[in-house]
Amino acid sequence: MKIENSTILIVGGASLVGSHMTREFLQRGAAEIRILDPLAFDGKSALGALATDDRVQMISGDIMRLSGLVDAARGADGAVNLAAYMTLPMARDPWSGIDVNVRGQQNFLEAARISGIRKVLFASSSAVYGYGFGGDVHEDRPLVTKDVPPAGALYGASKVMGEQLCRYYHGRYGLDYVVLRYSTVYGEGQHYRAANALYIIEAYDRIARGEAPVIRGDGAESKNFVYAGDVAVANALAFESPATDMALNISGDETVSLKQLADMVLRLAGSDLEPEFRPDEAGGVRLPSGDALRYVNDRAKTILGWQPETPLETGIGRLIAWRRENPGE
Amino acid sequence: MKIENSTILIVGGASLVGSHMTREFLQRGAAEIRILDPLAFDGKSALGALATDDRVQMISGDIMRLSGLVDAARGADGAVNLAAYMTLPMARDPWSGIDVNVRGQQNFLEAARISGIRKVLFASSSAVYGYGFGGDVHEDRPLVTKDVPPAGALYGASKVMGEQLCRYYHGRYGLDYVVLRYSTVYGEGQHYRAANALYIIEAYDRIARGEAPVIRGDGAESKNFVYAGDVAVANALAFESPATDMALNISGDETVSLKQLADMVLRLAGSDLEPEFRPDEAGGVRLPSGDALRYVNDRAKTILGWQPETPLETGIGRLIAWRRENPGE
Repeated sequence: MKIENSTILIVGGASLVGSHMTREFLQRGAAEIRILDPLAFDGKSALGALATDDRVQMISGDIMRLSGLVDAARGADGAVNLAAYMTLPMARDPWSGIDVNVRGQQNFLEAARISGIRKVLFASSSAVYGYGFGGDVHEDRPLVTKDVPPAGALYGASKVMGEQLCRYYHGRYGLDYVVLRYSTVYGEGQHYRAANALYIIEAYDRIARGEAPVIRGDGAESKNFVYAGDVAVANALAFESPATDMALNISGDETVSLKQLADMVLRLAGSDLEPEFRPDEAGGVRLPSGDALRYVNDRAKTILGWQPETPLETGIGRLIAWRRENPGE
Repeated sequence: MKIENSTILIVGGASLVGSHMTREFLQRGAAEIRILDPLAFDGKSALGALATDDRVQMISGDIMRLSGLVDAARGADGAVNLAAYMTLPMARDPWSGIDVNVRGQQNFLEAARISGIRKVLFASSSAVYGYGFGGDVHEDRPLVTKDVPPAGALYGASKVMGEQLCRYYHGRYGLDYVVLRYSTVYGEGQHYRAANALYIIEAYDRIARGEAPVIRGDGAESKNFVYAGDVAVANALAFESPATDMALNISGDETVSLKQLADMVLRLAGSDLEPEFRPDEAGGVRLPSGDALRYVNDRAKTILGWQPETPLETGIGRLIAWRRENPGE
């Protein structure tokens, strides 16, 4: 299917990824973007001026209500499910988290089936591999739960279930789908709900207040970030390609240590503070990774012709510029 | 805690494992066994005469109703959650399956917390490792989903979530728990709901009708069965040991190929038929395993002093004798 002249439903679209995706799809000529979202978080600000574009329809709705999803999906060509409780909200309320991540995804697929949608995308996560290891991570890697904080393992397992529900709908009803496993997404419109993304936004907000950014542990752990604008392109290509019934890593090419990341945020913020090293926070959720962690994205390149285009330094520069204009949102 | 003089709630207890567990706990001097079950499957027959024992209280209830669970848990010392949709029912109705396996387990733990239960056991499964491999499987092994039928991967991931919910309740509320990962349980009271258990009961039922047992594929795949009476002992020991916050493999010591298994059922049934080899059934759910699959149960021996005592041939002999008395249930 082509994005041009199409109608796309984005569930959970009043969000970091949703805002970049909406911009990207409109640039590619989409006729209509329908955003279904409870508008309960910082949704309006994440979308900014896009929310008032004539081609954007904002629908207040909840992924737990099938009837609203069916109405929103009617006549759409494609749909994306971005709605999820990430690890930190999952730690606080696993009741709602499991509802949204598992039953919500099932509702989403059911609405797509009922409404005759041609292709869906599911925003999965590198959390389907678990945490605590380093090295090269290909799409076939299994889910590690040992020593992972329960909220992280619940989140990862909920995404495994979301992916398998796609396979079930493909096998049983022929619904075309692509699962996109994002690594840690960051960019303008960043929120505070993704544990690993906190390393950027929290560091910058501390620096903006004149406080040193905090590194938990020794700073050697490696993380992978992918710019939200690049993620939006991957989603567009996944719709436009004939790819179906598969999962693809959508990750950045650069792996950084926590220490390198803090130094980069300090430099881009123009600060001469030094990062402060502290032990793990009691009650916090830290998702440990080993050295040289790399979510291999060769398959996305082969299948979709996608690769991350935005260097980490460029993307963080944009995030900081946005944050300066939108402090404390 | 001691089983003697205790009150134990068994959710989903009107079942294969529940009937053997009830018998075992009563033999160890339990004062009261409360069985909460929707009594919707073949529950009454699985419990047999046990259902009318003075010390057994049958409670018709649904793990999806928190209030009924809280009532049933009041004043109990320990509780076990056996309620689950296995792979075959999950394939037919993933809506109810996800409800029962994930939200049901959350309700179970919440009821235990509210009612001040001291220790809970969760009936997990070797499905938390996935399918398609052979070799030695230790408790730390991650979940493989690649090429696993979606219902099998959903079932496995739902058990991962159930285990992580135990960890969450332990970490947040101090609830003691042991996760027991059963391999394929078989024994008197066998039902038709576990994909791998079908290899025994379906083969016998065909033989009893004068038909050859059917082997899907070449018969070289290896399976692991554990006798329900041995599983019941493992649960008793898990309550009585100080073990908490861990998962243990509860599996048989013998690994058999599908061919060996069919031959054994034929021999024990006194039949001179030969097994019939057929390709995989369209629409069926087959859970592939590699050669020499072994769920290593050393940890259960070290921690609980448990090991499987019943040779496969003995257990299958008992299952056949029971089935002769209870055909077609």
